[in-house]
Order: sequence, then C-alpha cells, then structure tokens
Amino acid sequence: MNKEKIILAYSGGLDTSVILKWLVNKGFDVIAYVANVGQNEDFVAIEKKALATGASNVYVEDLREELVTDYIFPALQANTIYEGTYMLGTSLARPIIAKRQIEIARKEGTVYVAHGATGKGNDQVRFEFGYYMHMPEVKIISPWKDPEWLSQFEGRSDMIAYAKQYGIPIKASTKKPYSEDENLIHISHEAGILEDPSLRADDDVYSLTLSPKEAKDEETLLTFTFENGIPVSVKNENDQTVVTDPLQLILYLNKMGHDNAIGRVDMVENRFIGIKSRGVYETPGCEILWKAHHNLEGITMDKEAMHLRDSLMPKYAELIYNGYWGAPEFEMLRAAFTVGQKHVTGTSKVALYKGNIIFAGVESPFSLYDEELGSMDKAGGYQPVDCKGFININAIRLIASSMRG
Amino acid sequence: MNKEKIILAYSGGLDTSVILKWLVNKGFDVIAYVANVGQNEDFVAIEKKALATGASNVYVEDLREELVTDYIFPALQANTIYEGTYMLGTSLARPIIAKRQIEIARKEGTVYVAHGATGKGNDQVRFEFGYYMHMPEVKIISPWKDPEWLSQFEGRSDMIAYAKQYGIPIKASTKKPYSEDENLIHISHEAGILEDPSLRADDDVYSLTLSPKEAKDEETLLTFTFENGIPVSVKNENDQTVVTDPLQLILYLNKMGHDNAIGRVDMVENRFIGIKSRGVYETPGCEILWKAHHNLEGITMDKEAMHLRDSLMPKYAELIYNGYWGAPEFEMLRAAFTVGQKHVTGTSKVALYKGNIIFAGVESPFSLYDEELGSMDKAGGYQPVDCKGFININAIRLIASSMRG
Amino acid sequence: MNKEKIILAYSGGLDTSVILKWLVNKGFDVIAYVANVGQNEDFVAIEKKALATGASNVYVEDLREELVTDYIFPALQANTIYEGTYMLGTSLARPIIAKRQIEIARKEGTVYVAHGATGKGNDQVRFEFGYYMHMPEVKIISPWKDPEWLSQFEGRSDMIAYAKQYGIPIKASTKKPYSEDENLIHISHEAGILEDPSLRADDDVYSLTLSPKEAKDEETLLTFTFENGIPVSVKNENDQTVVTDPLQLILYLNKMGHDNAIGRVDMVENRFIGIKSRGVYETPGCEILWKAHHNLEGITMDKEAMHLRDSLMPKYAELIYNGYWGAPEFEMLRAAFTVGQKHVTGTSKVALYKGNIIFAGVESPFSLYDEELGSMDKAGGYQPVDCKGFININAIRLIASSMRG
Amino acid sequence: MNKEKIILAYSGGLDTSVILKWLVNKGFDVIAYVANVGQNEDFVAIEKKALATGASNVYVEDLREELVTDYIFPALQANTIYEGTYMLGTSLARPIIAKRQIEIARKEGTVYVAHGATGKGNDQVRFEFGYYMHMPEVKIISPWKDPEWLSQFEGRSDMIAYAKQYGIPIKASTKKPYSEDENLIHISHEAGILEDPSLRADDDVYSLTLSPKEAKDEETLLTFTFENGIPVSVKNENDQTVVTDPLQLILYLNKMGHDNAIGRVDMVENRFIGIKSRGVYETPGCEILWKAHHNLEGITMDKEAMHLRDSLMPKYAELIYNGYWGAPEFEMLRAAFTVGQKHVTGTSKVALYKGNIIFAGVESPFSLYDEELGSMDKAGGYQPVDCKGFININAIRLIASSMRG
Repeated sequence: MNKEKIILAYSGGLDTSVILKWLVNKGFDVIAYVANVGQNEDFVAIEKKALATGASNVYVEDLREELVTDYIFPALQANTIYEGTYMLGTSLARPIIAKRQIEIARKEGTVYVAHGATGKGNDQVRFEFGYYMHMPEVKIISPWKDPEWLSQFEGRSDMIAYAKQYGIPIKASTKKPYSEDENLIHISHEAGILEDPSLRADDDVYSLTLSPKEAKDEETLLTFTFENGIPVSVKNENDQTVVTDPLQLILYLNKMGHDNAIGRVDMVENRFIGIKSRGVYETPGCEILWKAHHNLEGITMDKEAMHLRDSLMPKYAELIYNGYWGAPEFEMLRAAFTVGQKHVTGTSKVALYKGNIIFAGVESPFSLYDEELGSMDKAGGYQPVDCKGFININAIRLIASSMRG
Repeated sequence: MNKEKIILAYSGGLDTSVILKWLVNKGFDVIAYVANVGQNEDFVAIEKKALATGASNVYVEDLREELVTDYIFPALQANTIYEGTYMLGTSLARPIIAKRQIEIARKEGTVYVAHGATGKGNDQVRFEFGYYMHMPEVKIISPWKDPEWLSQFEGRSDMIAYAKQYGIPIKASTKKPYSEDENLIHISHEAGILEDPSLRADDDVYSLTLSPKEAKDEETLLTFTFENGIPVSVKNENDQTVVTDPLQLILYLNKMGHDNAIGRVDMVENRFIGIKSRGVYETPGCEILWKAHHNLEGITMDKEAMHLRDSLMPKYAELIYNGYWGAPEFEMLRAAFTVGQKHVTGTSKVALYKGNIIFAGVESPFSLYDEELGSMDKAGGYQPVDCKGFININAIRLIASSMRG
Repeated sequence: MNKEKIILAYSGGLDTSVILKWLVNKGFDVIAYVANVGQNEDFVAIEKKALATGASNVYVEDLREELVTDYIFPALQANTIYEGTYMLGTSLARPIIAKRQIEIARKEGTVYVAHGATGKGNDQVRFEFGYYMHMPEVKIISPWKDPEWLSQFEGRSDMIAYAKQYGIPIKASTKKPYSEDENLIHISHEAGILEDPSLRADDDVYSLTLSPKEAKDEETLLTFTFENGIPVSVKNENDQTVVTDPLQLILYLNKMGHDNAIGRVDMVENRFIGIKSRGVYETPGCEILWKAHHNLEGITMDKEAMHLRDSLMPKYAELIYNGYWGAPEFEMLRAAFTVGQKHVTGTSKVALYKGNIIFAGVESPFSLYDEELGSMDKAGGYQPVDCKGFININAIRLIASSMRG
Repeated sequence: MNKEKIILAYSGGLDTSVILKWLVNKGFDVIAYVANVGQNEDFVAIEKKALATGASNVYVEDLREELVTDYIFPALQANTIYEGTYMLGTSLARPIIAKRQIEIARKEGTVYVAHGATGKGNDQVRFEFGYYMHMPEVKIISPWKDPEWLSQFEGRSDMIAYAKQYGIPIKASTKKPYSEDENLIHISHEAGILEDPSLRADDDVYSLTLSPKEAKDEETLLTFTFENGIPVSVKNENDQTVVTDPLQLILYLNKMGHDNAIGRVDMVENRFIGIKSRGVYETPGCEILWKAHHNLEGITMDKEAMHLRDSLMPKYAELIYNGYWGAPEFEMLRAAFTVGQKHVTGTSKVALYKGNIIFAGVESPFSLYDEELGSMDKAGGYQPVDCKGFININAIRLIASSMRG
C-alpha cells in the first residue's frame, strides 16, 4: 500500500525537523518544501537536513522575484500599513508560500499539506486560508493545533529529546532569547524577553539596521522612478548606482536602509485572534520605498481618489494581516487601488540620514500640481470670487443646523 | 448716524493693516481682534499698531490654553493626521479664532466680521464656516474675495502704496521669500520659492527645529502619563523635569522637539478647494505627543475599536482640514472617538534622538496586553485547538468561493 | 458535596427539556430561565414543565419592556437593516436574554450557564458573546457543540427516546416542517422545507401578517411622534386610538402591520459563520416604525450626518447580527448615532395599505427643510451666482484630471 | 466675422426656447441638442420649434440604449440607492446628456455649451461636471446663474413676455402645478404644490404607475436571468413573454411596474448644495429590477464582498447624485463593484402584486448557497465543535475588555 504524500513547509529548524520525522513516523511520505523568501539561510544545508531527517524529496523554491512583483508592489500601491505602524513584512510573505505549497501538492498528486506555525499566531491562519483558497479540498496537518502532537510535545525539551532519539541534528547555537522571522521585506523579533512591553528593546536585538547612533554622518540621496505606482528604478545620487530589477531594487534598498538606520519599529499590535503581541521589526528598504511612493502620490493622485484609498487602506491592511490575500473582498479593493494608481508615474527623491527619510523633490509628467494655480502670488486662472460661492453654498446646511441650535 | 461695528481678525501685518484702514475708509467702526494662539509676536506692538491704523478698540485674546485642551487634545485622541502626513497645525487653530471673534461680535452687538485670509486657501473656509456655525446671521467681509478690493489691490505694491498713503508703518524687514503661519502646534512655510515641489526646501527655511545634523548627540528620554487619551504629565528622565499644565506641556514638548530635530514635514497636500499645495511644516511637540499616545493605544485600545477609529480617522482629519470642526457629522465622530479613548490611560516612554522618536515602553492599569496569553512559550489559558475551529469556520466562505473558481 | 448550579436558557421545547434532564443527570443543580421576549407561549405551562423535568427553580422573566426601550429603539435610531433587507428581529433579542441569564447566575452564585442553540447558527454566538461580555469568567455548557452530547444525540429521534425514557412530555403537535423564532419584533421561519431557495414560501408559512391579498381594502393612517429618534406616541387617524407606552406601541404596530400585510421578507442571508441561510421573516410593526422614522429623518437630519450614519449602518447591523452588541466598537458607533438623532423630533404620518407604507407627511419644530430655500419658484435668500463658484471650485480637480487624460 | 457656435441642451419647453433666442440675440450661432433619454415627447415637433426659434441646426439624439447599458446597469450592479430611498433616476441620465453634448461640440468645433438647469438644483452641477470631465477647456453659458439673465428674467412672466415678443410659441397647456422630469428610469415630480412636506401628494400626481388601489387583483410572475449582475432576459410567466434587448427590457419592466403599482416614492432628500428638497418619484421598472438583482446576490455574492459593497454603496450613490460619474474616485469604486459582481449569474423570480415585489425563488450555477451546509438538520461536512473554537477565539478580546470593566 502506498503511503500518502504530504508537502511540509520546512525551515530546517528544530520544530519543522521534528514535525518532518513525526509525519514520517505516522506513515506519511514527507516531501519537504523550503520557500526562499529572502531569509538569510544556507538552503543547501537545509535540503540535506530534510533528506537526512526522512524526507523523500525536497523542493527549494526561490520565490523572491514573485514576492517582490506580486505581493510587495501591490501592497505599496495601496500604501498599506497595519495599525498605523507595521508594514506587514511577515503577512505579505505567507500567501506566496502557501500558493507554491499547493502547486507542489498538485504536482505531486496529493491533498495533504503541513506547516509548523504555532497555534497562537497569525501565520497558521495565513497559511491555511491560502491553502483553502487555492485547493478547497486540501487536508491540513497542523501539529501545533493537533491534540496528539500537543500531548506529546509540551515544550522545547520534548522536541529536543525526540530529535536526539531520531538522530536529528540540533544546532548547538547560542539561540537568541526571542524568535525571528526574516524575508526580503523585514525581520521580526518577537517573544521571549521581548514580551514585556514596558521594557525597551536592546540595541543588539536589531540585525538588519544600524542604529541612528551607529549610522554614518552623511546623507544618501536616492532618486526613484515609478510607473503606475510601481518602482522601475532607483538611482543613488551619491555614487550614481542605478538598480532596475525588482528583486535587486529591494535588496539594494535594504542595504541603503541598513546603512542609514531606517526602518526600526517597536509596537504592540493586535493579532487576528484577538491577542495583543509585542513586535520589533526592521523594514529598511520598504520603509524608504513606501515614503518615496507616497511623496509622489502627492502630486499625481487626485484628492478624492487619495482620500478614498486612505479610508479603505486600514481594511486592506487588516485583510492582508489576517490572511485574506486573494479573498473576494480583497480583490475588490485591489481593483479599486489599481485604478487609483494609474498616473502615479514620475520621480521621487528622498535623502536618508540617521533614521530620517527626507522629502527631496517630486516630478511627474502627469502631475496635478499646478504651480500657477497653487501659487499665493499668481492667479493662474483662479477666480477668488468663485470661492465666495463655494463657501456660501457649503455653508447652507451649517447655517440651517446652527439656526436650530 | 452710528457707524456699523465690525470685528476684524487682525495680525499686525501689512494685509490686515491695510484691510483695517480700508474698512475704516468704507465707514466701519473697526474693532481689531488679535488672537494669541502661540505665534511668536509682540502683542503690545500689534495692539498699538491697530489703534494707530484706525481701530476704535483692540481685543488681544490669549487662546492658548483653550487651544490645547479643546482642540489639540481631541485631535490627539483621534490620532488625527491629514493625508498620512500633516498634523493639521493651522487647521486646528482656526475654529477657536473664529469662535472668539463671534463672541466679541456678540459682545459688541454687531453681526459684521472680517478676515484677511486669501481667496485661494483653506483658512478663508475655516474662518467663515466657524462664523456661520456660531452666528448663522453673520455678515462677512472677506476682502480677498471682494471684487471691489480685488480691483483696487492687485498685488503687494498696491497695498504698500495704500499703507504709505495712510501712514501705516511697514516693517522694513528682510521678508522671507515665502509665507509662514505659526502657533502652538507648528509653523508652516508655504508659497514663494517653496512652490516648486521638485526642489528640496533649504535648511534655513526651518525655524522651530534643529536639523538632524545640528541636533545633540544624546537621547532625551520622556515619560508621558495619559488619562483617557489626554496627556496629564510629561517627565524628562534625563533631568527629572516634570510638566503637567496643558499649555506648559505643549511648550515644553516643542522645546524637546526642537532640540532633537523632531517634526519636519515636507509634502504636497490637497487643499479643500481642489488645488494642490506644497507645505513645509515643523510640528516638534505634537509629533512626539502623537507618537507617545499611539504607543499607549497599543496596549489599551481594543482591536476592533482601534480599527474602526483608524478607518474613520481620515474622514475626521478631512473634516478638520476643511473647516468643519463642530459640524453635525464631526460631532458624531467625536462622540465615537471619545468613547474609544476611555481606557487609554497609563504611561508611555519615548526616546528622542536626531529626528527619531523611539518606543521605550508602555504600561497601563487598563492594559489589554496579557503577557501569558501573548506569549509563544506559555499557554496562558489559551487552547490551540480552538484556533482550528476558528480557522475552519472562517474558511467556510473562502472554500465555497474557491470551489466555484 | 454541593452540586454546581447552572442557569439554563429554557424554552419548554424538546431540545431544552432534554438538555435540562441531561444536565441534571450530569450532576448539575439546574435552574431554568425562561425569557419572555414577546413570543406567543404559555409561560405557566413552561414553568411547570421545567420543574417536572428536574429544574430546582425556574425564573420566568418578562424582558419585553426593556427589549423595546434598550434594544429596538437604539436599532431604530440607526435605521439598522442587515444586508439591505433583514431587520434583525432575532439578533436584537439575544443580548438581553444573555444579559439577564448572567444576572441570574450572579444572583445564584454560579458561573455556569447553558443554552440550546444549534452549533451551526448565529444564536450560539450571540448568547456566548453576551455571556462573556457580562461575566468574563463564565463557564458555558453548549450541548450542540459538545462532543459528548453530539455522540449521544445524533438526531431528533434520540432526543425523543431520551425524553420518553425520563418521562419528559412531548407535544404531540403537528409540528411545522420548519423552525420558528418569535418575539416582539418578528417571527422567523427557517430550515426544513424552506431550505431550498429556488422555491417560493407558501402563504401558510406566515403567521403574524395577512397576505396582501387577504388584507382589508382600506388604508390605515398613522401619525407618529418622535423625540430624538425615539417614538413617543402613535395615533390611528382612522379611529383616534393613541398609544404611548413603548411596549404597547410595538404591540399595536404589530397589529396594524398584521392587518395591512406589512413586513414579509424572504431572503438568503449570510450567517456570521460564513454559511448562507434562507430566512422568511415577518416584521409587521417594526417595518412601519422604521419607515416612519426614516421619513422624519428626511427633514430633521443634517445631510452629512445622515450620509455618515448611512455609511456606518451596515457595520452596525453586522455587529448586531454577529452578536457584538455592547462590544467596544459597537459602543463607539452607538455614541455617534445617538448624537446624530438629537433633532429627529416631530411627527411622521404613514398610510398602510396591502403591504405598502405610504409617506403621508412629516413636520418638525427642528426641521432643516426650508420651503423658501428649497423652492424652485422663490429665491429664499439664495444667490444662484454662488452656485457658479461652487461648481467652478469643485470642478478644479476634475478639470486637472481631465487635462491629463 | 463668424459667430461662435454654441451647443444648447434643448427640451422644447419655455425656458430653453427663451434661452435659445436669448443666445441668438447675444450673437451666438445656436445649435440645439435634444437628448432622447426616454421622456414622452414629440421630438419632431421639438426639432421644428428649435429651428423656428432660431437654431441653425438641431441634433436629436436617441441615447436610450446607451443609457440602459452604460448607466442603469452599472448602477444596478452596485445596488445603488440614494439616502435609502431614491433610485437616482434623474442623476443617471445627466452624465450621458453632458457627454453627448460635448461630442457634438467637438464635432462642431466649438467649446461653448449651454443648459437651462436652474441655479438651485442638482442638474446644473451634473451637467457642468460632465462638461468639464469631457472637455476641460469648455466654456459654459448657464443663464440661471448668469447675473445678466437673472436681472432680465425675474420670473416666468418675463419669459412669456420675451417669448411673445419673439414669436416663440407657448403651449397653452394646462400646466401642472409642479415640475416633472421623465426618462427611462423614472418620472420625478417636484416643486410647486409639492413643496410642503407635511402634505401627502395627491394620487393624480402620479403618471407612470397605477396606485395600489387601482392595480389589478392578480400577481404577475417574472423570471429574470442575470449574467455578472447584468439582466440578459426577463420572462413573464403569466403569458410567456420574453424580452432580452436591454432597452426593451427596461420599457417592458416599466409597463409591468405600472400595472402592478410598483415604484412610488415620496421623500425629502438632500441636494448636493445642502438644501433639502421634496421629491415624488415613480420608478416602476427599475425598482423591480433592483429587487430581483439583490435577491440573486443573496446566493451568489460572497458575504464579505457584499458587506464591503454595502458599506461603499452610499458613497457611490452620493457621487452619482452629486454629478461625479466618471470622476477618479468613482472609477475606483466602479472597478471594485464590477469585480464583486463576477458571479451574480442565474435566475431570480419575483411576483408583483399591488405595490409588492415578492421573492419567488433564486437559482445559480455559481451559487454559494449550500443546502447541506445551511441545513439545520444535516451536517453537510460541518463540525459543530469548530464553532466552539470560533467563538472562543473571537471572545478573547471581549473577555479582556470585560475584565477591565
């Protein structure tokens, strides 16, 4: 009798290694799937470890380019930020991981998938919604919500014991006293010693950015070019470097952000499941990109289009955060936002300096900014007396309300 | 026959001085009204100038305390920001100026008021809506929308000639090549040489803040205490200074912001009348205050209450920007936001350093943050298996949509 | 050893009778709680049955007055309708039932409560959220989600067998082939033969309303008086009947609606849990009330206040439908809507005729309707030329967009 | 010297006839443009009258088909209703009239257009925004906002005198004591004796519908077929008539609505300019269409897609009402709504009877309604215990809020 194939989202860490072996021991033919979304890892070593731990096959998938063009850029177009602060670094990488996992499941002819996300977090939701949206008949093994697993593995020590029992190598690392998740967009630092929000995070928590104190004492001036709200190039005016490839552009911005201490965030956020959580994030490149893009919107977006987008953005961010990328209501908003970016085309300059992103000029062939009209010194065709009518008409209802007290 | 009294919002500058005399020459009994909203001015000199120019009486009104408690604090409670960037420094000061002007009109027994705001800007709207909301029968003289005035005064030179003709003193100042508006909240720099948004503003434009390069190389650590979203004290942990008076608190934060290069903004914004406008702003104190407050909301606001507020905030900011402070729909939102701030009580620490406002810890007796529950290491009463149901139920509609393709 | 007390929401039907006995058999001291929310029942008989089935005590609580004033009227003020059609008859009655159940639990000194709502519906959610909001430490027994119960009772026949075993009387009723829920607001008909939405509901499904064909061939003319959006009286102009007591007013309107064939609704709605459900409802009185109230809003609500309310109403309806009455975000919206109803005071006449509710005139001492100003024949102080400015200014951004194509 | 050409939106009535002659007398070469949007008029007679009054040319344009497919159907897809009641009959016809007027102006090589809409209404705004959006350089002559015209024509008698002076024929009609506007969608009755909202409109005001009392005592059963939210056919099940052509479909529905007393509305609405206005409308066909469409949405629209649409619809209706059809923010919403209608495909039956539109069954190949899943009697794959988790997780934040009081 053939074993059921199962596609396991595999990171190479202790948790997913133990899950891999546990699934093998439960009788599954485990195919490990390693998604490269830009984390700093030795993918060759991970592949070897998966095979050594019992995987029958390993897929190492480089999803980075697609992550940039199909997830980061659409989020950018909507100026998406969760709870006023968080740039959704983890949230944006989850739908693409789930999507490819299902593609592999289809290719391998199975409906079984597994992941190692905890039962208290957002990622489990994002993965599983992604699975369901791409394969409604999917069967999901989610050990951290599985009573059998939970009774077997009460803590880390149980996993270490299990690993030792089955010869799974354990990194004798000086593990950080908190957990991290890294991709092209950001690195997150959570849990462990960071769980007390009354305490400030130590400087050594940060890994993708220098602190403002460490950053160089010189501005970096960048010129972005956007088309329809999508960056098509960035030029470093200090050294004339030009980057146009989407993936390289993000990598380059991450370096610029690192050097100039851009993108540190420390916050208490609301998880989908209603638990508050403290997160420390570093988003060096995207924070620059978001700001440069928003500056260009200033001259290229119609006022009411922008205000409509701004009022809907929190909903969009919430949908992405909660794992609804691709859901019907998400697609509606996405269609609206795409229309709203039609003319966000032009250049936007920003200067970076010790944590600051400074507006340094915007230009567009589709600018709605009319220097004559905007001027306080010139008329530019404007009839001030028109504004008398504008005010009088708008005041009609205010006067009526005021009169009744 | 008695002359009609008119209350003129008077600044002491060339425009309102010429308007004052022009109104006198039109036969009005002009009462000058000087609102002190925190601008850096010699109010004694302004009063003298008003009388010298022909005012029959002068009211110099210190509105600063009320501006802080009745305008800045409510805006803070809503985390109000216009177009993602602008903290509404000018917008917030206009309704109180209009309100007091009408109070003076009532006291003086007249329905005539006048202001010197230009016919292309937002302030004319804010003033006039304010007048109508407090006195529906008001009669407004607004020279910059008045055809007679406009034909008489085509530019600044006409006003200078008129001033000379009537002996109105003109400051032989090295006038800045752009216009400014200052109050407790901010200073704005607009127009003139700033009207080209492709050019970065020079450093010497800024007056309320040091640049990040000039700022001291040392952090300032502040501890805020809030009650129901209102700051009740700030303590400088470096030197143990404590400030509790609302007005003094804002003034103190402006100094802290100045020293640490906080609050510079450069943007293209959308005026109410549909014209795009470039504004350079410095909001040193309020930017700190907004951030400290928002950090505290992280542990004290319910998730859905915050998300609702965030989705309505852009509308609230738009209403304030457009001059609708006090309008029926504004009062509805204000009531909602006040309810939402009920438990935003506790302390919030921030560190200031060269333009950066760094999260340094939050605590609250009403915290919704549950360290046990939020922990990735402890259960805290949480049943992971519940989340299986949570995901499965939420996925029902996603599966249904996915199945129909 | 003392038994644990448990408060069971008891209806007298088969399900909750079997649950009652099952809880007794599990060792609970069961206190039956019967909520009178206006359903057509013999409460004395229900009380007897509860005691006969093993309850140690029975609370029969008349919640009708409070249901009207504290739930129906606030919903009315918001013009609340779910998915454009459903007037939330069931949803509005659930929070008050849960609230009183917890009050009884506190009085009886227990944290245990139970209800018989199914595991597929909305009511389980509404009850349990209500319990949690009023008693965070509550312990809920919900048999229809309890694996033990579910394995014991797979269908109706198992419950009948259990009832027979324990001598629980079973109504030998000609049970309707669908389920019903009745209260002051409405009766719902669901499930069974109604589950196929391609079929029209038979006329004999309806019980609270005559069909338009059966209704009398004469109009009924009603005059409502509202204060701040709350009805304070209704007068039948045909026979001069006047009703002012809130509960009597609703009962009277239900009669008027019945006689005039008002309030039948047939729809497919979305349950909170993401399942679509077909519901047939009769809401005779509230449909009249909602319409009369909305007509009065036409002359008394400010335009922008109404538009804001209308844009937020779907959220409010969703919150009520989903069981979030009293949640933080609900309270925010409620505060906003209450402010918005401040001047919804006056009279509203409607004529009822064979399913139609016909506008028959509105008047208010706080009317914003200005006949002079609204008139097409009179100026009423209106300056048409003002509108030129109004249009020109509003067109500025449209022209700018149009020019760039 | 050549005269300037001007395109005048011409109705054949007194106002636009006098305007035509007045423009001729001012030296314009007046081209009359008569838009056929379904009003009941003798277009040959209107054309003759225009020429007799001095027009150099007349365009009579049949816009009916385009009005149905490009304006009514998109509005239907969004379920658009203004202020909960008004189906935007006049608003929807204005943008197409303006668009064609500009097309004629381009063809004739002029930038001058004129219309006869009053200076107090909404239509002036809708026309002029439409002109500006299609021809930013347009020059608009709008007599009812023109001081010269207003001083010459203070009332109707001045126009009659002018008409007599220049031999313009005046209909010796028994003019109705209120004004009307008719098109495919509706007829409106406003002004005159209808301006007092405390009075009920007389039955003889209505012209497109029988009253419920006059309507036949028999149901009409209609079966609609929709594709992506657009009606592609309607079948009368009483007599087997089938209509598929969009224009014929609307005309047929208007007849069905007329016969069954569907679509009368009487309300006080808020004009864009802030004045309240009483409108009596008859929308016989579209009210049926809207209802049939909404019923089908019940089984075909995803819950969250529908809720999002419902929360944005008031904004969409407001934009249409205010004349912003085609504005940037309108196009954003339209894109979202189009996506949301992707699967609104299937049949919807409604029965018409004396003003009632009764749900009579819906079916769709893309139905999201799952009878098994929705059933209260069958499990349909549903795990009730999942809902325990769903509730527990959703209650986490409610419990936290409740615990702090």
